[in-house]
Amino acid sequence: MRADSGVIQSSQMVDYKFDFGTGNTNPETFPSEAFAKAAGRVIPGLSESLSHYPGKYGHEGLRRLMADREFDREGVRVDPQNMILTNGSMQAITLIAQTFCRHENSCIVMEEFCYPGSVNAFADMGIDMVGVPCDDHGMQTSELESILSTLVSQDRKPGFIYTLPTYQNPTGTVMPVERRRELLDVARKFGCILVEDNCYADVHYDGEKPPALYAMASDVRHIYLSSLSKIFAPGIRLGYLIAEPPLLNEILPHRHDAGPNTLAAAVTEEYLRGQLWQHIDRTNAALKLKRDAMLNALETHCGNLCSYVSPAGGLFIWVQLAGSIDADRLEKEAEASSLRYLPGRNFHINGNDVPYIRLAFGYPSVSEIEAGIRQLAECMKRSNRD
Amino acid sequence: MRADSGVIQSSQMVDYKFDFGTGNTNPETFPSEAFAKAAGRVIPGLSESLSHYPGKYGHEGLRRLMADREFDREGVRVDPQNMILTNGSMQAITLIAQTFCRHENSCIVMEEFCYPGSVNAFADMGIDMVGVPCDDHGMQTSELESILSTLVSQDRKPGFIYTLPTYQNPTGTVMPVERRRELLDVARKFGCILVEDNCYADVHYDGEKPPALYAMASDVRHIYLSSLSKIFAPGIRLGYLIAEPPLLNEILPHRHDAGPNTLAAAVTEEYLRGQLWQHIDRTNAALKLKRDAMLNALETHCGNLCSYVSPAGGLFIWVQLAGSIDADRLEKEAEASSLRYLPGRNFHINGNDVPYIRLAFGYPSVSEIEAGIRQLAECMKRSNRD
Repeated sequence: MRADSGVIQSSQMVDYKFDFGTGNTNPETFPSEAFAKAAGRVIPGLSESLSHYPGKYGHEGLRRLMADREFDREGVRVDPQNMILTNGSMQAITLIAQTFCRHENSCIVMEEFCYPGSVNAFADMGIDMVGVPCDDHGMQTSELESILSTLVSQDRKPGFIYTLPTYQNPTGTVMPVERRRELLDVARKFGCILVEDNCYADVHYDGEKPPALYAMASDVRHIYLSSLSKIFAPGIRLGYLIAEPPLLNEILPHRHDAGPNTLAAAVTEEYLRGQLWQHIDRTNAALKLKRDAMLNALETHCGNLCSYVSPAGGLFIWVQLAGSIDADRLEKEAEASSLRYLPGRNFHINGNDVPYIRLAFGYPSVSEIEAGIRQLAECMKRSNRD
Repeated sequence: MRADSGVIQSSQMVDYKFDFGTGNTNPETFPSEAFAKAAGRVIPGLSESLSHYPGKYGHEGLRRLMADREFDREGVRVDPQNMILTNGSMQAITLIAQTFCRHENSCIVMEEFCYPGSVNAFADMGIDMVGVPCDDHGMQTSELESILSTLVSQDRKPGFIYTLPTYQNPTGTVMPVERRRELLDVARKFGCILVEDNCYADVHYDGEKPPALYAMASDVRHIYLSSLSKIFAPGIRLGYLIAEPPLLNEILPHRHDAGPNTLAAAVTEEYLRGQLWQHIDRTNAALKLKRDAMLNALETHCGNLCSYVSPAGGLFIWVQLAGSIDADRLEKEAEASSLRYLPGRNFHINGNDVPYIRLAFGYPSVSEIEAGIRQLAECMKRSNRD
């Protein structure tokens, strides 16, 4: 599952009292009445298009709207003909891996920590993941360069570099402009395809928003992924991939699902058209309250038990546990308290045991966040070896 | 694309004057007003579920409804916990191939003619397809047995047997009960997984309906695929896969799309619940008129130029061209007449040039069918070497 360890292996979801696990969105700001009205307006005209297989690109209106979204944020015109809609951006991720990592020797060079959706998919596909160390500014480009040099010397060529430069999941980091330039330089130097996963770009609370990588260079082989899961709802399963024709034409033959959902795309376009940014402003305002509630609760209750940086966007706080905390014990305590988070190892490309946990704040209510973090502090204290 | 050669490589669909190409459904019977009302009823209650990732199984209500559909047709209770919803049944097809054909030596044993969605997907995944000759009763089980024996002697084990026993696409054949028993015996004897693709089962016009394979044996390793694309609409992208837990638990870890569309599933369940069979009766009645119109037009205009059998269900007529017809010339003539069908080679697992064409009658209107087949007859006459 996208942004999740979160493999729900039973059809019955487990209900946690405090669920800080999955990157679900805020149900309170989902505009269900207005969305129902949009459905009522648009569905009567859909007999024709619903009776067709959607094809490899998907609903044109939503592609145009998402091209406008990209233009509004980046000031760069994206041609909707270079965009395909996908079943969430997870489908786009497996599609590019299927396309560009077909050889036994294939690998993907990526941030050492990444979300389990991608890590599990790549692992299951038998693709070697090569991790690039990260710091507070994301992927370290000097490390990336030396990794690529080593790979070249081993006669290996990565299928692509995979990066979440903005509100990286799980770490929440934002790559500054200068490092973005270095990243583009490295991709250019090695002739490497650069896959930019920008699904959190518009879940923005404060601070500067650097440009997307694709808006900074036109001479890099670039694939751009984004989604409506984080700005609207994951249950509508709408993501998209943008690439220039030479790359896109390599990808398309590997799509075999007969296309993305016309119904979801049509209703979503009908609702969002003309009010995309108002919707995003509304949801971000609510999410910011939740982020702040979680930061405050962590500060109040967990002060000396962990450390973290306030994320400027996205849905997660990446929390480093104090050295004195027994992480295994903490997991058991949390489970016993019906409190769910994802342990750091779920995000490490090799499953390394790291003293981090990821807390998701998008879905629970502010009062659940306050009570849950208080509970988490209790669990931490009980797991403290000091 | 499901039921299609039909790889639409541009985001702009080509419009044909007479489109007998793709297995689209009948737009005239799509209940768009009532479907819009169903959306209006159900969406206001979906804030919670749309804010979640759907997970590996998908919307429980639609799974229950599809379990009822199977029970109503087969008299066998399917546990909705053993069902997963997929992005059309094409996703189920690639999922089982990813699961059970992971070794380089993997193969799939299947009807020699199959629809391009499956054939192209398997080919792209690098999976060897072993074709079983077919006759008017579908896959020939004696041939199947000898093929499996040969494979065993070569130390090869097929990932699964893949069959469309009812209204096979493209041939339209229905496997009689006796041969179904033989097929089950062979699967049992070789310990082979049997994948039954039953997506056309309820698109039924006349004649006997034999039971599904899964309803005839409980001691065969069986995976069942079906869809709402043919009874409702392909644009809602809803298919499903049913398997007992041991097989299902092998499949689930390879699903990486974060789940099927909650919106489409919820609205579709809301509309179809309580009137599934009335809806199917209504659409089948309209489709039967189209089938009959196409059969009549073929009889009237193409009598000595081709031969075919009236299909008892499904959306296609599989037409054998007279030996005197130049099939390449016919393709050019049809293209020049803005008439689309799919040539036989698109359906052969090795792309063999065979003197067949597949005509789809679900989407065009009765008058388009009549005029189009008249036009096709003209094309055939111009392509006749006699």
